[in-house]
Amino acid sequence: MITSCANAKVKQVIQWQNKAKERRSAGIFLTEGFKMFEEAPGESMQQIYLTEEALERIRREPETERKLEEVGYETVSREVFARMSDTRTPQGILCVVRRPGYTLERVLRSGDPLLVVLEELQDPGNLGTIIRTGEAAGVTGVIMSAGTVDLFNPKTIRATMGSVFRVPFLYVDDLPQTVEQLRQGGISVYAAHLEGKTYYDDVSFLGPTAFLVGNEGNGLTEETASRADRYLKIPMEGRIESLNAAVAASLFMYETHRQRSSSRTGER
Amino acid sequence: MITSCANAKVKQVIQWQNKAKERRSAGIFLTEGFKMFEEAPGESMQQIYLTEEALERIRREPETERKLEEVGYETVSREVFARMSDTRTPQGILCVVRRPGYTLERVLRSGDPLLVVLEELQDPGNLGTIIRTGEAAGVTGVIMSAGTVDLFNPKTIRATMGSVFRVPFLYVDDLPQTVEQLRQGGISVYAAHLEGKTYYDDVSFLGPTAFLVGNEGNGLTEETASRADRYLKIPMEGRIESLNAAVAASLFMYETHRQRSSSRTGER
Repeated sequence: MITSCANAKVKQVIQWQNKAKERRSAGIFLTEGFKMFEEAPGESMQQIYLTEEALERIRREPETERKLEEVGYETVSREVFARMSDTRTPQGILCVVRRPGYTLERVLRSGDPLLVVLEELQDPGNLGTIIRTGEAAGVTGVIMSAGTVDLFNPKTIRATMGSVFRVPFLYVDDLPQTVEQLRQGGISVYAAHLEGKTYYDDVSFLGPTAFLVGNEGNGLTEETASRADRYLKIPMEGRIESLNAAVAASLFMYETHRQRSSSRTGER
Repeated sequence: MITSCANAKVKQVIQWQNKAKERRSAGIFLTEGFKMFEEAPGESMQQIYLTEEALERIRREPETERKLEEVGYETVSREVFARMSDTRTPQGILCVVRRPGYTLERVLRSGDPLLVVLEELQDPGNLGTIIRTGEAAGVTGVIMSAGTVDLFNPKTIRATMGSVFRVPFLYVDDLPQTVEQLRQGGISVYAAHLEGKTYYDDVSFLGPTAFLVGNEGNGLTEETASRADRYLKIPMEGRIESLNAAVAASLFMYETHRQRSSSRTGER
């Protein structure tokens, strides 16, 4: 059992918790808690650290125990774990997970594309919520501009509730060019935009579809927005000028889900 | 100009920033930034603190200058303002605002009730987002259990983007009893619930409607949920078990908005 924060592995984990750059160059991210341990694919887990109490709990379930033994693990004292953890009330289990590497070709391979394209989104909670809602609504991929908040930020990872392991995603350096590629690939691209004249629920999203959603404060850049096939608006009462980015994205994704479900099954 | 943090008014504001209890007993909340200054009703503003730079900017607009003069203000140095502020990059204007006092009767007075009822919601960002989306979707009131996160928390106030001044809201001590009152008042009460068998977009929300949304981790208590007329579910693909509370509430509110708009105008 590791009982000292001077331990090299512990120091490494603490550095990864605090520095996005170090996580990136190591090609990993960190997850905490039992749920994330259960949801992470065994083959992508590189290290597991846990307290004696967490180990006991895991050993009660043959399935999770098997996973733990296959990957291998180290126990650490509660004091050391508290230092390694990013949360206030740690569950006592932390995993080092290899980042998935998706390509644009892989993201586009789905037969029925429904993409969310994010430009310079800055709030980790919003990004995590979009990935989580995306899985629920049947999104086939999330594409992000290079300046979008780090998906592997511990807050974002938590907010995805495990969806990060299942929704294909990709950071791209040149978002306007990627949007061009989507359109050339036959995908209709819609931008959430204050100048939109078309209500989002008046458009058919049965064909291959991508939604562009911009930065929380400034929306989409003109350069990216101008590449869209159409600007969409969400009806708004009162004196509201715009919705939270995760809410806007969720309304688009669920409107698509609604249309595609009724087209497959007739009226439910 | 106030240049010392030892000033009694400055000390008072700093205490209000940090202590929900002090804000409550004073019957006030704090807002920061130009947008919130513009949106706050003049008659509910009690004090305004601002830097020389912010004062200059406000004086450029006759309308905001008039408001400032009517309420009265104090200038403070930039250093002092940084200490009074809750944000990392303060805009240099902070207002002390009297809390609105809504009653249940007032909240129910709307001819076309659309209520969101929140039980023990804990995330300030979620609450603020629900109030903001609520105004946009035409919600007539937000009712919260006493243990719901403080609406007057600076983070929540920011996330409402000014809607806190316009959406009627109420904390209640006995939520199950309030839900009973809603039903006796002819309001159909729907609960977001994992055991829901009815899809939310298969139900008509044209009549008086309330949606119950529970705590982020645990959902609704049995005691409250059992008072609902019906449990609703949101269709979910993948391995997702539930959605973020603000996203779920937003989908319900916008489904209602969609139904009520088409019933008023025919198909758009």
